[in-house]
This record gives sequence, structure tokens and C-alpha cells, in this order.
Amino acid sequence: MKRYKLTLEYDGSDYVGWQRQDNGLSIQSVLEDAARCFTGEDIVVHGAGRTDAGVHALGQVAHIDIRQDRRPDTVLDALNHFLREVPVVVLDVELVDDDFHARFSATGRHYRYRILNRRPRPATTRGYVWWVPVLLDVEAMQDATRELVGEHDFTSFRATLCQAKSPVKTLDRLDVFRDGEEIVVEASARSFLHHQVRNLVGTLELVGKGRWTRQDVADARDARQRAAGGPTAPAHGLYLVRVDY
Amino acid sequence: MKRYKLTLEYDGSDYVGWQRQDNGLSIQSVLEDAARCFTGEDIVVHGAGRTDAGVHALGQVAHIDIRQDRRPDTVLDALNHFLREVPVVVLDVELVDDDFHARFSATGRHYRYRILNRRPRPATTRGYVWWVPVLLDVEAMQDATRELVGEHDFTSFRATLCQAKSPVKTLDRLDVFRDGEEIVVEASARSFLHHQVRNLVGTLELVGKGRWTRQDVADARDARQRAAGGPTAPAHGLYLVRVDY
Repeated sequence: MKRYKLTLEYDGSDYVGWQRQDNGLSIQSVLEDAARCFTGEDIVVHGAGRTDAGVHALGQVAHIDIRQDRRPDTVLDALNHFLREVPVVVLDVELVDDDFHARFSATGRHYRYRILNRRPRPATTRGYVWWVPVLLDVEAMQDATRELVGEHDFTSFRATLCQAKSPVKTLDRLDVFRDGEEIVVEASARSFLHHQVRNLVGTLELVGKGRWTRQDVADARDARQRAAGGPTAPAHGLYLVRVDY
Repeated sequence: MKRYKLTLEYDGSDYVGWQRQDNGLSIQSVLEDAARCFTGEDIVVHGAGRTDAGVHALGQVAHIDIRQDRRPDTVLDALNHFLREVPVVVLDVELVDDDFHARFSATGRHYRYRILNRRPRPATTRGYVWWVPVLLDVEAMQDATRELVGEHDFTSFRATLCQAKSPVKTLDRLDVFRDGEEIVVEASARSFLHHQVRNLVGTLELVGKGRWTRQDVADARDARQRAAGGPTAPAHGLYLVRVDY
């Protein structure tokens, strides 16, 4: 049995999310089908993080076990061959030790969120950005991130259905910057709660609009209830960019 | 009668191109329909350049004449309202003099071509880049542009069906640079021949692969026949970025 680490890019637009589900096509099932076509074996694909429906990835990581001993390059080309009709692509394959686990060995996860901040709708980037037509104050957003970076109880910013045992997480980085007509929010942590990045972005957007102050963000955080946090930003602006090990 | 200059962004993927045609939906016809819905008048939209099927625009320019006197902001919002279901968006509207003509007054056109230069296929950018899996030599490509910048007979690089009277054009700028996993080619001129940018990119790609030298490019140019030039790069990597007046 050989274990392979896969680095993946995908367009989440037409998928129910990473995880296999009854109500539609998932990234995981598409990958498992490709791995089965290639090896003839029943294969489970373990991902580093379960991205939601519509969320994209530029550097998701997963691992698979294959009975046959194959060169990483062969695994890469074979999987991509069977994925050729779908917007899921394997960027890199590495042979790893048996104790490597895409989810449990991860030491850092990096997300990017793209906001198109201009009056006209997106045309060439629709489905890849959140369109916010009101001019946002990037400096106020960046200033408010200081209430969120570090170790906090993030109950106000996690989905009510979130299954994590503890709402306490350490947010290592949360940055907001302008890139042409877009505002980019980047978040890094060892791990995130369900919807945490999208809820943080939805909260920062309120600050950018001038409806919330930095103090409102601190108050929302301290309230420790989801109803106190900002709304959930749409899935299609979010990218899982990288996973560290 | 008032004349308005429109700056446009569109995703050309599902269109037969800029120009109204019998065999499918064009950008021009979609805009004319929106203008008719807004004004109740029969309106002709004049574009700065006729982009091919699949070509995108980040800053195409067009003009329209409206009998009613409307504020530019009203025109912008009304057109975007009627365009809301399609990937065509008006970025800016300006009231201009009657002697302004989107096509004939243009003094410069700027195109960008995006090549995704990596072994795995595109996932989040499919339809927006030309995928070239073989590593290209960007410096050799940039060096070869020196045979193409300036005033030349571009017969070898224009579509055989090109209707321009003269094949002699002045290419003001042709630059090749790397941007992450992408190679970007930028071209500027007062005007271009049909397929000129795509044929230049197809030629530079041969240089990047090492199949052609800079001298081969010069020889192709001097041959003054289309068969001597490189192949036509795919439409979906091309963007009309800006038009100067």
C-alpha cells in the first residue's frame, strides 16, 4: 500500500462541495471515480478541508492509498486523464509516509476571499467574486481585523451547525487589501470553524460599508452567539489557497 | 440627439463575437436589445473593434445615439438593468460630441493575451486562458517581439479573410512577461488586422517552445503570406483591455 499526497485546483461552482453527498456531485466523489478508473481499486479520498458548495480551491490537499506501486508522475497524469471533462485538476502528486494524513497532519490552512468592489456587476469574473457595489473602506476593514486575529472564542462567527468540539481557535492572520477593482481578504489558521472565513468576511463588509465600527466587531465577538456576528458572505468568492504540513 | 460613449466589459465565451450575425447571439445585439428596452428607440451600437467569437473585453468602447436627453448615470444604470441576465456590463457612460465615433476616433487599442503555462489543465480559469503545458521560454519570446514591433507588412499574421485595405500596420508595443503560472502577452497599436494578435501569439508560442528562432519570426514576417506565419492562438485567451481616444 502506497500513500500519495495530492494537491488540487477546482472550480466549485457546479458542485455540492468537497464532501460526498446524496443531493449532487461532490469534488470528493469525482476524484474517487477518477482514482477507481485509474487503479481498478475502491479508493477513499481524504481531504484537508471540506469546502462548501460553490467554494473554489487553488491548493486543496488530499491523500489516497493505492495497492499498486506507481510513480507520482503516473498518478498525476492518470488522474488528470480521467478528470479531463470536469473543472477539477491535480496540480501535484507526492509519495508520502503512511502516517501522513491530509486532514490531521495539516498545520496551517490559507484562504483567500475576493470581493469585486465596483458599481457595475462582474462580467468576466462572475461566479469567482462577491460583488459589492458600495465603495468599501479598506482601511477600516483592516483595522477591524485586529479584533479577530489571535486566540478567541469564535462562536459568533461559526455556523450554528458547526460540529467542531471547541469554538476556540487561533486566527494567525487576517488581512484586507485592495487589488485593482477587487478587495482581497486573506485568512490563515491551523484550522477553521464551519463558515468561519465567510462569516468574518460578511462582518468585515459591514465595517467597510460604515455600518459597523471596530468596537461593534469586538462586541459581536464577545457576545459568543452566532446571531451577534455579521452575515455569511457568498461561497463563490472563497478560495482554499494552500495547506501546510 | 445625444451621443454617449460606453465602456464595456464582457465574457465572450458564449457569443458569436461582437458583431451581429445570423448564427447566434452577439455582444452588439445584446446591447442593442438593452438600449431598445431602455429608450423605446431603434438603436445601433457602434463598437471600437469587432472582437471574435470567444474573445473577452475588459474595456471595449462603443457609442450610441439617443433622442431623449438622459444623464450618463441613468444610461449606465438602465443598460445594466436590462443586461442583468447576461455577462455583458457597462462600466462607464460619458456624454460625447456628435463627431465622436467609437471606431473611427480611436487612436489606440490595447489587447492582453493570457497563456496558462503549466502541466495541469486550468480549473478555475478554463475559458479564460490558453493552456500550454510545455514550459515556454519567456525571454526568447520577448526577444522575438523585436522583429514585430514597429511598422511592418503584417500579411503573414492576418486572417486570409481580413478586409483591411492595407496589411501595413504599426505595432507600438508587444510585451511578454510571466505572472505566476501565466504568461501574458500585451499588444498595443492604433489598429490591428483581423486575427493579428492571436496570430502573433501563436507565432511567439513557437518561439517559446524552441521550435522557432527570432530569425524564423523575421523570415515569416518577410514572406508576406499567411501560410508563413504561426498558428492562430485560441480566442478565449484574448482580452480587449482598453481603447484610447
